[in-house]
Amino acid sequence: MQALDETVLSALKWDQDGLIAAIVQDHTSKDVLMMAWMNRESLQKTLEIGETVFYSRSRGTLWHKGETSGHTQRVVAAYVDCDADVLLFQVDAKGPACHTNNTSCFFRSLSDFAERPERL
Amino acid sequence: MQALDETVLSALKWDQDGLIAAIVQDHTSKDVLMMAWMNRESLQKTLEIGETVFYSRSRGTLWHKGETSGHTQRVVAAYVDCDADVLLFQVDAKGPACHTNNTSCFFRSLSDFAERPERL
Repeated sequence: MQALDETVLSALKWDQDGLIAAIVQDHTSKDVLMMAWMNRESLQKTLEIGETVFYSRSRGTLWHKGETSGHTQRVVAAYVDCDADVLLFQVDAKGPACHTNNTSCFFRSLSDFAERPERL
Repeated sequence: MQALDETVLSALKWDQDGLIAAIVQDHTSKDVLMMAWMNRESLQKTLEIGETVFYSRSRGTLWHKGETSGHTQRVVAAYVDCDADVLLFQVDAKGPACHTNNTSCFFRSLSDFAERPERL
C-alpha cells in the first residue's frame, strides 16, 4: 500500500495529541486482536512496510509491532470509518497480539474482569 | 449483565476526559461495526439495559444507540483488553451501525478514502 499524500492525511481526524485509534483484526478468524494509536508517521510507516507500526503514548516513540518478539502483523486490508477518526487493519498475525501471549488482548470477559479487576 | 461496582469501575483505565473506547462487533459476522466512547454512566447503563449506550463527545450527552432510528445493539458479550483501557462489545444489531445506513462504519477502504477523502 502506498503512503498517503498530505491532503488525505489531513482529511483524517487526528485527536488533540495528533493520534488516531487503530483497531487490529485477524483477517481470517475476524477476532479483534488489539487497539492501539497511530500518529501520521506511524501510519505512513505502516503503509510503507506493510506491517503495523503504532505510536506508543507511554514511551513517546514509534513501535513496530513484533520488532523484538517477532510477532509482526502483516496488513492485508485497511479501512477508515465514516467520520475518519478510527482506522481498522485486517492483518495476518505472526504470533499473539497481546504481551500476555494471548492471541487477542480481549481475552477477558468483562464478568471475569469484575471478579479479578487487574490491569495486566 | 450487572452494573459494575466502584472497585471494578476504578480498575478500568479512563482517559483524561473520563472516557474509555468501546469497539462494537457483530456477534455472528464478526464484522467490526463501529467504535465510540463510554463514560462510567453510559457503561453502567449499557450493562443495565443490555443495549449499547455511548457518550457523545460532540453533544456531551449519553447516546442510547438506536433510540431514534430503532437500530439498537443488544449486547451478547463484553470484553476488556489486557491493560483495561478498551472495551469490546459483541452485539446483535437491529439495523445498520452507521448513520450512512451502511452495516458497518468501516465500509470504506483506506485506498477508497485516499481517492475521495471525505468525512461523512
